[in-house]
This record gives sequence, C-alpha cells and structure tokens, in this order.
Amino acid sequence: MARNFDVVAMGNAIVDVIAPVDDGFLLTHNIAKGVMTLIDEYRANQLYHALSERREIAGGSAANTMAGLASLGARGMFVGKVKADRLGESFAASLKDIGVHYATVPASDGPPTASCLIAVAPDGQRSMNTYLGASRELSPADIKKTDIADADVLYIEGYLWDTQSAKAASRKAIAIAKETGTKVAFTLSDPFCVGRYREEFLELLESDLDILFANEDEAKALFEAEAFDEVLQHAGRWGGIAALTRSEKGCVAVRGQEVHVIDAAPVARVVDTTGAGDQFAAGFLYGLVRGKGLGICGRLGALAAGEIISHYGARPETSLEVLATEAAML
Amino acid sequence: MARNFDVVAMGNAIVDVIAPVDDGFLLTHNIAKGVMTLIDEYRANQLYHALSERREIAGGSAANTMAGLASLGARGMFVGKVKADRLGESFAASLKDIGVHYATVPASDGPPTASCLIAVAPDGQRSMNTYLGASRELSPADIKKTDIADADVLYIEGYLWDTQSAKAASRKAIAIAKETGTKVAFTLSDPFCVGRYREEFLELLESDLDILFANEDEAKALFEAEAFDEVLQHAGRWGGIAALTRSEKGCVAVRGQEVHVIDAAPVARVVDTTGAGDQFAAGFLYGLVRGKGLGICGRLGALAAGEIISHYGARPETSLEVLATEAAML
Repeated sequence: MARNFDVVAMGNAIVDVIAPVDDGFLLTHNIAKGVMTLIDEYRANQLYHALSERREIAGGSAANTMAGLASLGARGMFVGKVKADRLGESFAASLKDIGVHYATVPASDGPPTASCLIAVAPDGQRSMNTYLGASRELSPADIKKTDIADADVLYIEGYLWDTQSAKAASRKAIAIAKETGTKVAFTLSDPFCVGRYREEFLELLESDLDILFANEDEAKALFEAEAFDEVLQHAGRWGGIAALTRSEKGCVAVRGQEVHVIDAAPVARVVDTTGAGDQFAAGFLYGLVRGKGLGICGRLGALAAGEIISHYGARPETSLEVLATEAAML
Repeated sequence: MARNFDVVAMGNAIVDVIAPVDDGFLLTHNIAKGVMTLIDEYRANQLYHALSERREIAGGSAANTMAGLASLGARGMFVGKVKADRLGESFAASLKDIGVHYATVPASDGPPTASCLIAVAPDGQRSMNTYLGASRELSPADIKKTDIADADVLYIEGYLWDTQSAKAASRKAIAIAKETGTKVAFTLSDPFCVGRYREEFLELLESDLDILFANEDEAKALFEAEAFDEVLQHAGRWGGIAALTRSEKGCVAVRGQEVHVIDAAPVARVVDTTGAGDQFAAGFLYGLVRGKGLGICGRLGALAAGEIISHYGARPETSLEVLATEAAML
C-alpha cells in the first residue's frame, strides 16, 4: 500500500526570529557575539521586543531538514510542539508555506512557543539565543499511529532526548514504526547531546534504527573512537545505513560492507555552515525514499549541504530539485 | 622458509643532483621554473657542469620508496640500471649508505647513468630536469630468480612501461613472483603514464597484481572514473589490496569489501610535496610485510608521507621507525 508521505519528522519546533542589529545592541543587551546561548522565557520576551525588522521562519534541526526535503519535491510531515500563540501560528504557517504537513495540536497552556532569536551584526556574525519553551512539551499523546504508518521513513532528532516527555513520544513513534514497516532514521544532533545519552543512543542503534545520521564529532563521541576509520569500522559492523558527514572532507555512506566515499560539493565561498547537517540529511533521505543507490544519496546530501553553506540561513534559497536535476542525480 | 628481504623494488635508477641557483642561472640556462622537464644527454651534461655546490643522492620513485622502507627498519633490495660511470657509482653508494641491497650489474656501454638535475631557486622552487639515460636499459637479463624469490613483496613502478626492455624485465619478475609466492605490488606512477598504458595496466591488475598504489588522479585515469567513489567501487570489485592516496584528504585502503578511510597526518607546514606518494608506499608496504591490518598500513603510509612533505627532498630526514614507534603504530 502506497503511503502518503515520504518522511515524517519529529523535532523541536522552534521559530527563528532573525533581525539585523548593530554592535551597540549586542553590548546593551549583553549578547555574546557569534555563539549560541540557551535563554529563559523572561529574556526571550525582553530580546524579542527589543529587536526590530524581525523576520520569522520555522526553524529547528528536523524542521529545517523537512524544508530541504520539500525543496527537493518530497512529501513531508512534521511533528513538534508549539503553543497556541502568535509565534506558534507563525511556525505552522511557515511550514505550510513550503508544503510540509503539520498537524500537531498546539499547547493551550504552559510555556510559549520556542524561539531562537538571531541577532545579525553588520559583519554578518550571528548571535543565537535559544528558548526551548513549548517544544519541550511534545508528548506521546501527540503521536498518532496513522501519521507514522503513513510515511516511508520516521526521522527523529537526538535533541528530543533532552526532555522526558519528548523522548517518550519518540519511543512511541519508533514502536509504531517497527510495527508498520516504517524505516527509522535518527540524527545524533550534537556531540554534547551524544555525551549526555551515549548508552541510550547505542542501545537505540542496535535495537531500533535503520538509518543513522552523524557528523564526525558526534560519531566519534558515540563510538568513543579517536580516528574516523574506527567510526567507519563500527558503522560497518552495525550493518544499518550510516551517513557520516565530515565537513569539507565530504561524507562516507555505509551499509554493512558497502562503503561510499563522497566529496563535499564545490562551493565558491562558504558563508555560513549553520544547518549544513540538516540539509545533508534532507538530500540523503530524499535519495533513499526515491530508491537511489547509497552513492547517489551521499551526493544528494552533499549537494543540499553545499547550497545551504553558500548563503546565510538554514533553509535552501535555490530549489534543490532544480540543482539535483541539473547535476543529473534525479 | 623465511625470505631474506621484505621488499624487492624495480624502478628507474636516477641520481638526483641538487644545487642552489639564483634566478639569473635559470634565465641563462633557459630552465622553466618549478616544473619537471625531460632532457637529453647533451643538455644533461651541460647543466650538470654549470651547477655548483651539487649534492648527489639516489633518487627515482621506487628507490625513494626503498629509502623510506629502510628508514622504517625493513630489509630491501633495489633492481634498476645505471652505467659504470661516476654517477652510477654514486647511485650504488647512496643506496648502500642506507642499507638497501643493490646488485644490478651496471651497463658498460650505452648512455650514462640517469640523472635528475634539480635547481633550487632562492624562493625554494625546484626546477627538475630529468635525463633517463641508462635507467632505460634495464632488461630481463637483470632479473635473477633468486632475488625475486627471496622477497615477500615485489614492488614495481609503472614508469618502467616507458621502455620495452624494462617492461619485459618487469614481466619476467612478475612471472617469477607468481611462481615463488612473492606478492606483486605496483604503482601507477603518474596519470600520464596511466594514459599511455591504460589497457595494459588494467590487464596487469586483473591477472597479476596483489597490491595497487595509486593517487586519486591516477586511479581515475585507470578506471575512467569522474568521482572518487567510482574508483572505490572498482577497487572493491577487483578484490586485491588498493591503497588510494588523496593528498590532503588522506587515503582510502581497500581489500574487497574491507574499506578504511585514513586522514592525512597533521603537518605544521607543507614545504614540498615531491615524493609524498613514494613515502606513502613505503609506510604502507612496511605495515603489510609486518602483518599489520589495513588500517594501520594506511596510517603508516600517511605518517611517512607527512614526514616527507614537511621538508625539501624525497627521502626521510627523521627516522620513520622512531616516528612510527612514537605514534604507537609498531
């Protein structure tokens, strides 16, 4: 039976609020330039109102991957929690705009919708201030069996392990996927995230995952490996599909004894590497759901990552479908 | 039965003649700065005498690999042709100095010993003028069955295919190796060399070789591949041991379905990449003859290549055995 969606993704539902500022603003508001800082509700509210010329766009790792998949022409669904407030509506509208199905019921009380306030200085440096808010409230009740069953692949971001209820929601979705034949893909999200949940992630890998996304640092943290080749040998023994990204060194795609070494896509000028991993996952997953060989999946991932790092912002500015068609990958 | 040598290598026997020059010298003698030019006997003679403060050292690709193997503590033999002249004696002495066995009978007539006149300008750029001379006279009569049978590995440089008699000598050595259980290793030498003998090299690969050394450009030329991953898939299907070098991207070592992705060794400053491939082969072969796993072989190759590119000259300046011991690879 054909399913209605290529990928259903679960992740933190975060609205990126992007605004130009001058260096005086950063000083006045005590913002550390060029880094990501977790902030609380009070400060999020304060900063939000201080910013002008704000541009709002659905963000978060897995949601950005869905934007990439949509740009490639895939049919995607996103599951993540917002509150029924203005930013929550903005998040939903932003996904709807690009054709990603989003039907998670917004929370009617509790913390407001998560936001990442991004202050862009005149020199282009981005200072990110993340407030997780309602995104942490995702719970098993938000997972519908039909949603999971209706997709070829379930894609989950590791960040969800930071909240007990979101983790429980993920485990429920995985259990349904195993039952309904939906493949389970997982991204390790961040080396610190791996550090916090290493044992659980390893168990997940052995018991539940079909597809693993990890950058080199995350994979080294997971397997406690010093050299990349150790990671590769672990991944080969595991036997599932591992997509291992290595920044400018490209990526290595593994499925048991099948190994592909793919170069990074040539990029005239690297502007901003934020979101490269999310778009790599989009390209790679697209290849998989379209039945492409692992080598092409890796090249599609590299192509999508190459597009994103050539400009500011974590969503494609050029149609990935057009780029991939031009590169004769589709 | 234990053999007396780890590796017996065959290659062009060339004396590197290195001398400092000023830019005026390059102009006066019409030397193209920074490139390698093939020259004839007359010009070799003329340039040789014009250079002062000459330093002479046995060179040539496979001979440099033997110098690396000696630096690692391996027992090596070299087979290559010089003439019984002063440079020929210099070549023999230079190999003897580092403990590489060399007993090929020098030619008593014909062209003089091959030389590569290397003019080093004040800015460090090297202009290489290569005269192949007697090295092209290597013939089947120079191949002794006992020499081949007495080594674990026979290592041949592809450059020998440029001369009919040297190629015939190589084929004789390969036939003996097949008979006596000596493994056959081959380096593709140069993308242009592959272009000239592609069909023959492919046939050699299928019929005779156990171990293939190639840099990315050479391997792409051999398999007529556009992307490195295509090379990798070809090498895997072949089934022998392929050591594929990728400059700053490190190397990939393959044996059928076993694949290792090894990073380049960290180098504080890349001074001169001449001879990196030759030393990589030395490190890799050393690992093989010592029974190391393919991943360690690749790391030994990367270590040796890293040493050579951190200074001028194609022979190790620091004991590779000490470096490899410090890196806990031995």
